[in-house]
Amino acid sequence: MTIESTIIEMAKSAKSASRMMAKASMDQKNKTLDYIAQQLQEKADWIQEENKKDLAYARDKGLSNAMIDRLTISQKVLDSMVQGLKEVIQLPDPVGAMSETRVRPNGLRVAKMRIPLGVIGIIYESRPNVTIDAAALCLKTGNAIILRGGSEALHSNLALASIISQALSDTGLPKTAVQIVPMRDREAILTLLAQEESIDLIIPRGGEGLIRFVVDHSRITVLKHYKGVCHVYVDDSADLSMAEEISFNAKVHRPGVCNAMETLLVHQSVADAFLPAMSNRFKTEGVELRGCPKTCSILPHAIPAVESDWPEEYLDLILSIKIVDSMEEAMNHIAQYGSNHTETIVTSDYDRAHQFLREVDSSVVLVNASTRFNDGGQLGLGAEIGISTTKLHAFGPMGLEELTATKFVVLGNGQVRV
Amino acid sequence: MTIESTIIEMAKSAKSASRMMAKASMDQKNKTLDYIAQQLQEKADWIQEENKKDLAYARDKGLSNAMIDRLTISQKVLDSMVQGLKEVIQLPDPVGAMSETRVRPNGLRVAKMRIPLGVIGIIYESRPNVTIDAAALCLKTGNAIILRGGSEALHSNLALASIISQALSDTGLPKTAVQIVPMRDREAILTLLAQEESIDLIIPRGGEGLIRFVVDHSRITVLKHYKGVCHVYVDDSADLSMAEEISFNAKVHRPGVCNAMETLLVHQSVADAFLPAMSNRFKTEGVELRGCPKTCSILPHAIPAVESDWPEEYLDLILSIKIVDSMEEAMNHIAQYGSNHTETIVTSDYDRAHQFLREVDSSVVLVNASTRFNDGGQLGLGAEIGISTTKLHAFGPMGLEELTATKFVVLGNGQVRV
Repeated sequence: MTIESTIIEMAKSAKSASRMMAKASMDQKNKTLDYIAQQLQEKADWIQEENKKDLAYARDKGLSNAMIDRLTISQKVLDSMVQGLKEVIQLPDPVGAMSETRVRPNGLRVAKMRIPLGVIGIIYESRPNVTIDAAALCLKTGNAIILRGGSEALHSNLALASIISQALSDTGLPKTAVQIVPMRDREAILTLLAQEESIDLIIPRGGEGLIRFVVDHSRITVLKHYKGVCHVYVDDSADLSMAEEISFNAKVHRPGVCNAMETLLVHQSVADAFLPAMSNRFKTEGVELRGCPKTCSILPHAIPAVESDWPEEYLDLILSIKIVDSMEEAMNHIAQYGSNHTETIVTSDYDRAHQFLREVDSSVVLVNASTRFNDGGQLGLGAEIGISTTKLHAFGPMGLEELTATKFVVLGNGQVRV
Repeated sequence: MTIESTIIEMAKSAKSASRMMAKASMDQKNKTLDYIAQQLQEKADWIQEENKKDLAYARDKGLSNAMIDRLTISQKVLDSMVQGLKEVIQLPDPVGAMSETRVRPNGLRVAKMRIPLGVIGIIYESRPNVTIDAAALCLKTGNAIILRGGSEALHSNLALASIISQALSDTGLPKTAVQIVPMRDREAILTLLAQEESIDLIIPRGGEGLIRFVVDHSRITVLKHYKGVCHVYVDDSADLSMAEEISFNAKVHRPGVCNAMETLLVHQSVADAFLPAMSNRFKTEGVELRGCPKTCSILPHAIPAVESDWPEEYLDLILSIKIVDSMEEAMNHIAQYGSNHTETIVTSDYDRAHQFLREVDSSVVLVNASTRFNDGGQLGLGAEIGISTTKLHAFGPMGLEELTATKFVVLGNGQVRV
């Protein structure tokens, strides 16, 4: 079989599995997830042997130690996969829930019933634990899934997928509800992205390059964010010690992730009082500061920022700082350079807090809290399959509900249209 | 300016208008809609003069009388546009509504706020009243809109759009919130479909050919249905006189629309009792029947159906009929040949009613009611901009809420991530 025909066959069998998955009860799905957790523990040795093939391949290719570390399925990684499965088992299953019942004048009762999306394609980079996390969330919501992981993780992913498929068929669900693309060729991704008759949604997880590649070649809707250029705006009415804690947390708590702050916007009337202490605090963590001219006049050791700093996602201990005349200027800066991801205002002014919440066009807008809270778990969704900065279907962190849709169900007793 | 640069400029100015529209209050938007209604009445003569240019062009091109009728802006059509605007004014504005507030253990209050989508592109065929209907719904929900109507309606659409733009600017809103593509060239559509940086959603309205063209060439998400191959399944437990009323209504009430029945599925154990009377009823309206072999043995005047009948959307007084052994066979037929649009079961069996509701993968699934109820107004949405058979973002009739999205808003008092 050619690569193309293999992928087309996978997509078709995923679609047919998705019909059976949509009917599975919560008990059935939880039983499968529990069985996967058991098998991960029982077959730990075999998984780690398969993982070693990937590690050898990665060393041959000269991958960095950090990459090899992310690729390694240690006992600790296995334990966290098992723990993740147990958490997903505890989450409520949204499928079948009915809401918004209304009765029409002719007696028709109209409701919306939550249903799985169908078949989801996940395209991701090297960490093999995504295989288990993503499969668990998609299975729990009654979807079928086709996974295309990083080429360095192929043996590990195939081993994990074979455990999942076996668990599906041993517990009475279709084994093709979870499939891994079994080859490294790029043609496989391109064929996958063209199966719009079988696949309902593509979720890419990885760097901006991967995501742009997927968007440029997909005929299927893609839920994604390219990057997180997140801002904290310190208003003139801000509690400055609160502003310092929030800004510090937003920048240094985990600088390499999408909800870390990249640009700090400060109202001019508090800049002199706020920035020197803030700068000293950042110095303790070695944060490099790049400032607008006014910032540099207050903080002489700051590096002058250039135009390309403002739209930049550093993912590192680097921060750009701009002093603004007003909240309007801050919001205009965010509209021009931001990524619709996460923005925070620190303020004690009621009207401005609410204006910022209403007018800033980001998936999560916060008042007096760190940008780091844009995260499904932190916002109470229970789990997260990704963050979307496109507004269609989902905007912000995507939990179980965002892996479902609703259909209308209508209960009549003979009504016809007049 | 070239066609390409004109369209790019329009898309950019729509995006900048969308920021202002998102801030507009319900009062402001209703004032604009009311002003449009006034101007349609005051400028009726001018609109009808512009419309005559289109009618002359249509006659030169030899369009059918039916097409010319659809293109004509009579006083009655103008009155219905005004009436439509008044109805949209009465609808609640979803923008800004907050829902699902939850409090996290650290005291963060998390809610979802409804926001406009941004810029919507509508691509449609000849009827100029769509220009007013679609613009009204998009303005009410705080979106900007770019309309590309049928080339036969260009003068009419430009006249209507100029009235809308003038009303926007006279009432303090950005006039580029509603724009008409001012040329007939196909290049204009192709350029529009490539503006993914500025346009958030494309909604095509028209025949399957138009919709496939849009989907094949769009880099922006398209909400659409290709066709409505709707089924009524008459269960062995059905009240047969109710089944006859529902089937008759679903087929003949308005055969040319997407929620009309195209295939009737009948349980074998009631076929002999049901089909002869049903067939006589259809004969009164001249419905042509195309049946499976069993159907033809019961109804000798039925034409034998061929394979291509089952996926066909007749949009006419033609009906295919199949006798099935069980509800499962009916559901398998629907899964194979249906269009995920609208399906009805007529039954008095509780379990089967609920199984059909759960397992049939259509945007609207009904028990004991006509397929003709798949309609935003009939289901209580207040208005409808179209029907989607894709599950992402919207599945089924799309009302005002489906022209919006939600963002997370988070109220803190100094929380940082630990």
